[in-house]
Amino acid sequence: MAGEKRIGILTSGGDCAGLNAVIRAAVHRAAHHGWEIVGIEDGTQGLLQRPVRYVTLDRNMVDGNMMRQGGTILGTTNKGDPFAYPMADGSRKDRSAEIIGGLRELGVDALIGIGGDGSMAILRKLAAIGGIKLIGIPKTIDNDLGVTETSVGFDTAVAVATEALDRLQPTAASHDRVMVLEVMGRDAGHIALSAGIAGGADVILLPEIAWSVQGIAAKIRRIQQAGRNFALVVVSEAVKTMEGAAAQQQFTDGQKRYGGIGNYVGHLIAEATGAETRVTVLGHVQRGCPPSYRDRLLASAFGVKAVDLIAEGKSDRLLAWSNRQVIDVPIEEAIKTYAAVDVDSTLVQTARGLGIYLGD
Amino acid sequence: MAGEKRIGILTSGGDCAGLNAVIRAAVHRAAHHGWEIVGIEDGTQGLLQRPVRYVTLDRNMVDGNMMRQGGTILGTTNKGDPFAYPMADGSRKDRSAEIIGGLRELGVDALIGIGGDGSMAILRKLAAIGGIKLIGIPKTIDNDLGVTETSVGFDTAVAVATEALDRLQPTAASHDRVMVLEVMGRDAGHIALSAGIAGGADVILLPEIAWSVQGIAAKIRRIQQAGRNFALVVVSEAVKTMEGAAAQQQFTDGQKRYGGIGNYVGHLIAEATGAETRVTVLGHVQRGCPPSYRDRLLASAFGVKAVDLIAEGKSDRLLAWSNRQVIDVPIEEAIKTYAAVDVDSTLVQTARGLGIYLGD
Amino acid sequence: MAGEKRIGILTSGGDCAGLNAVIRAAVHRAAHHGWEIVGIEDGTQGLLQRPVRYVTLDRNMVDGNMMRQGGTILGTTNKGDPFAYPMADGSRKDRSAEIIGGLRELGVDALIGIGGDGSMAILRKLAAIGGIKLIGIPKTIDNDLGVTETSVGFDTAVAVATEALDRLQPTAASHDRVMVLEVMGRDAGHIALSAGIAGGADVILLPEIAWSVQGIAAKIRRIQQAGRNFALVVVSEAVKTMEGAAAQQQFTDGQKRYGGIGNYVGHLIAEATGAETRVTVLGHVQRGCPPSYRDRLLASAFGVKAVDLIAEGKSDRLLAWSNRQVIDVPIEEAIKTYAAVDVDSTLVQTARGLGIYLGD
Amino acid sequence: MAGEKRIGILTSGGDCAGLNAVIRAAVHRAAHHGWEIVGIEDGTQGLLQRPVRYVTLDRNMVDGNMMRQGGTILGTTNKGDPFAYPMADGSRKDRSAEIIGGLRELGVDALIGIGGDGSMAILRKLAAIGGIKLIGIPKTIDNDLGVTETSVGFDTAVAVATEALDRLQPTAASHDRVMVLEVMGRDAGHIALSAGIAGGADVILLPEIAWSVQGIAAKIRRIQQAGRNFALVVVSEAVKTMEGAAAQQQFTDGQKRYGGIGNYVGHLIAEATGAETRVTVLGHVQRGCPPSYRDRLLASAFGVKAVDLIAEGKSDRLLAWSNRQVIDVPIEEAIKTYAAVDVDSTLVQTARGLGIYLGD
Repeated sequence: MAGEKRIGILTSGGDCAGLNAVIRAAVHRAAHHGWEIVGIEDGTQGLLQRPVRYVTLDRNMVDGNMMRQGGTILGTTNKGDPFAYPMADGSRKDRSAEIIGGLRELGVDALIGIGGDGSMAILRKLAAIGGIKLIGIPKTIDNDLGVTETSVGFDTAVAVATEALDRLQPTAASHDRVMVLEVMGRDAGHIALSAGIAGGADVILLPEIAWSVQGIAAKIRRIQQAGRNFALVVVSEAVKTMEGAAAQQQFTDGQKRYGGIGNYVGHLIAEATGAETRVTVLGHVQRGCPPSYRDRLLASAFGVKAVDLIAEGKSDRLLAWSNRQVIDVPIEEAIKTYAAVDVDSTLVQTARGLGIYLGD
Repeated sequence: MAGEKRIGILTSGGDCAGLNAVIRAAVHRAAHHGWEIVGIEDGTQGLLQRPVRYVTLDRNMVDGNMMRQGGTILGTTNKGDPFAYPMADGSRKDRSAEIIGGLRELGVDALIGIGGDGSMAILRKLAAIGGIKLIGIPKTIDNDLGVTETSVGFDTAVAVATEALDRLQPTAASHDRVMVLEVMGRDAGHIALSAGIAGGADVILLPEIAWSVQGIAAKIRRIQQAGRNFALVVVSEAVKTMEGAAAQQQFTDGQKRYGGIGNYVGHLIAEATGAETRVTVLGHVQRGCPPSYRDRLLASAFGVKAVDLIAEGKSDRLLAWSNRQVIDVPIEEAIKTYAAVDVDSTLVQTARGLGIYLGD
Repeated sequence: MAGEKRIGILTSGGDCAGLNAVIRAAVHRAAHHGWEIVGIEDGTQGLLQRPVRYVTLDRNMVDGNMMRQGGTILGTTNKGDPFAYPMADGSRKDRSAEIIGGLRELGVDALIGIGGDGSMAILRKLAAIGGIKLIGIPKTIDNDLGVTETSVGFDTAVAVATEALDRLQPTAASHDRVMVLEVMGRDAGHIALSAGIAGGADVILLPEIAWSVQGIAAKIRRIQQAGRNFALVVVSEAVKTMEGAAAQQQFTDGQKRYGGIGNYVGHLIAEATGAETRVTVLGHVQRGCPPSYRDRLLASAFGVKAVDLIAEGKSDRLLAWSNRQVIDVPIEEAIKTYAAVDVDSTLVQTARGLGIYLGD
Repeated sequence: MAGEKRIGILTSGGDCAGLNAVIRAAVHRAAHHGWEIVGIEDGTQGLLQRPVRYVTLDRNMVDGNMMRQGGTILGTTNKGDPFAYPMADGSRKDRSAEIIGGLRELGVDALIGIGGDGSMAILRKLAAIGGIKLIGIPKTIDNDLGVTETSVGFDTAVAVATEALDRLQPTAASHDRVMVLEVMGRDAGHIALSAGIAGGADVILLPEIAWSVQGIAAKIRRIQQAGRNFALVVVSEAVKTMEGAAAQQQFTDGQKRYGGIGNYVGHLIAEATGAETRVTVLGHVQRGCPPSYRDRLLASAFGVKAVDLIAEGKSDRLLAWSNRQVIDVPIEEAIKTYAAVDVDSTLVQTARGLGIYLGD
């Protein structure tokens, strides 16, 4: 039939909640247009193999429970830039031609790529060389893409981190302890900031704001003087000291010795305050949790829109959520706009307004 | 001390998740300014009694678990406009002077009122007469205030409704049933729309969009023909027929006979399709659930800002969330801007894009 | 290969949480024995059609998320006793020979039937006629099988009902309301009793204990006199008056007029106490919720044991949980031992010890 | 009034879910008898100070949300055997007389102690010296008290650990990873065993069963050969090698170097299989989570019964759950019966029946 299309879809980079809801939405929308949609397995890895590893998706496959599950039914990978692919012998090799060959073998007219900034940079190069239309959908629990207010996976990750604080508070209070929670977020403190406010933290350490052990200790002493004997501390996985190379080296060594940033900050607090301190490193439960309704909403809006943009003949665009709407922007621009926590944002002001220690 | 203030805070109207987080944030922020904050009990009801029923709030009272709980520690009421108060003998009486007297007895310099549009209309009249500064904070699970993107309580209500769909889907699929879920939202379909998309509904009935039993039946037949034998239907509590007074009367009678709108729609679907149909009326679990992290974030931002506006000497302003910021607008204007579901919004487009039946 | 077997497995009757975990466990255990296992679709319905509707199950199909989902991947039905099958013309027909023919077509050596007492009665007749070995696994959210301490699905249903009370308490307290929760359980009050105690109910109405509106009202007045202004009431779906045929007729009429037992009890309480009353009818979320860890444990123990019993050549046995072990008993005996709530049990004593009103 | 009593209640040792439900039940039951009940703060610590730190408990204080919260409103401690109390100068001192003096100051006729075996040993010595009646209630997430089928806190801890596996499975599957989850339980593997079965683990390492890295690697290879590319591994916090002192020393060193047992086992698996491995250390969220309905049921039954035993004049008895009933046994005997995982138990058989690797 004239006008029939075949669309490929893949998930790339670290997994998160909501990926399956994107896939489901795209499948439903493609069915509306009468198009076939194929899911490529394990990101670009599935395109390196022959025959290409893929699955033809239909509506009954993606209805029911699938949207409600974490992870991605297609699999994903964060290994292997195809332009400098790590070979078994330790060398790097340009395997981009194989990927493009894989896309040709699949016979797809367009590709929907769900990933972070790194994946987008690679996919647009591949799409340009291969002459394949590409629509990108932003996903990252770190929420560090500046072009979109939020990315698929972020809402769920914050919810999980907040729930952890909800569970740590009663045991902290029962034992007069300082509870330290290390959360994900890479170089951006978004998860820590939102979860910290919502979870009633007393201290939130972000990569974006300079802090000191003395400052934390002073905050904890003020709490104790006011008659409360426990405290909750949230630490982003990438916080750093801001005080020069020597201090940074000592800080890096400390993390190694104590088994990670959360454990090291816990040790420093115990040392500075004498308080009994316990540390929780939340880890991958932030990724694999069933998606929140908001991540499913966002994912659904993105999945529908991606197919509609393909119908309009657009390419090389990244979807974004902005002011209650889905918009699309050039991928090239989008991946340049890194968004750390804005220290003048409403959330930072709210945290400070609540008396939370963020830094000196 | 010069500059010392006493702030009153009250919750008014139907309760929802996040109210305690507003109270907590205001208490923390007031402590920062060195002000006392008193919680008035049961909305304006506490001001009608002598002595006025209130509690002095301090930080230790509001830390710990309180923010994580549904409801309001102050109590609330949606009875009794003080300007036309329902008396035991069935008459109405203007008791506004008693309320204002109560506020004077309390000696508050300013009042933070947490409520919906109805409460705001009353509170601003009282504040004007009594010469008391007033800052309003929007809360409603219905999310029908046009001036703010979202209100305290909405996010949690949608999450609960979505979770119900997650739980109905497997039993629907196991028994080849049509499951109907009636959700709250008064005259606005926001809860139904968001939960319906996120929860994988096949049909969403909103007060804002005309629909027909024939349309629903046709959708369910299409699903069956495609090989799936169950369907999920979400019904807003205030959906109506759009077809004139006679049809509306029949519709109202049907609701009465079958015990509510959800049950009646379930009956109509069963009749039209022959499918086995079950109905769930979600009810007050949408209000009393522990607040989601987003409701706590929003509540915290509002609570802090309300106190800061009082510090700036502002009054008669309603807080609102707009484009990632807390803004403040005149209450009078705010309560005029009712926001039903916009039929051209991204969410409606997403729902239609997914093939969900919303109307004909 | 000598010793190779083919086992059929089916789910029958109302669905509940944990069915998929039984299926998964049986598949893993059958693989250990080197046997094939086929899942029959929609209970005995799948055996009525030609070709028989079934799916061959393997370990990769049942690993991953499947065990964590509510419902049954095989589908189920509670329609249609094959010995008196309801025909389209309203007549009844013995279709048992077709079912047995279906089992022969499948070539199964043994059948694992997961169901309640009604299903077991039918399956053992079929197995006897067909000469097929049968092992039964008890599932029912009602927990009314006397031979086993607990059945698959009960734990999850109680957890959902308790969670509902957790969500109703804050809104009850905020508005000084009486909240009535109607829960499932058919003629047994087990869900109501356990959820009521765990959820902090003030009144629990069971089918097994006579109660009165006066008794409820007196309890609510005592609560109010002690200074608490809300109350939580749990009502089993099958409570009845115990006062003779006339009262029972009035009671039945009342349920009809007010739309179910929960709504009627709510009406009676409001009338008797003047308290503002709200009713929640929990419905099918008690069935479709993801299974609790305990339901998955029980299901796993049953699934493994069922296959082992087949390996031992046993038949016509129902599995049961007794004193921390899986035992097996003759199905015939098992289905005779109905277990209502024992009014001298520890849980009833605990409820009374807490001052909960159960009856006069 | 003749017959009036004052009962003390305290929580001792590590906190867990359900403690507040015990306290609530005791308060309700004491009210029934017309007795006063006082909560001693921070275990025996509150009795060391003058005035003794305590709170008089009444029904309104303990109703509402309190039962639904983790932790203990009384505070607890696992520091400081009063017979050999650690002093600031590093010495040990017998402070038992101060504790007994504290109990006399409080004027309690009887004491309800909620704790594990260590706490019970101390409390019964104190009670004997002081001539105060004592009823003990078992709480421990480790479930290592042989006399009771289950202890307060265990059910919730298993539920949290299972939920973590539910969240790790999708991300494991998406990335073809081995996910290692370290859970609590001290020297007993009960949490690991139950959560591992319910959460779909492929490997469960318990302190009670000898295991080997080779065994784990072989299991993971079998999974991969069968076409599944991820695996879930649960590790008890106290697993050990069973192969002699030298191996044990190497194992202890490895734990230190890799930051705990979970991380070390993760390292060993990665080394032996080449699989990408990620580790989650669940930590104190297993303690502070809101109590499951079962922990609340158990706690309620214990709290009621403790007060009833005091009414009967009993003392030096520990409550236990046995065969669906609360029984009471001499504390002295009870604390001798340590219950590790029974390697012939139904759960171990179920785990092996599912093909889970537990050891060689």
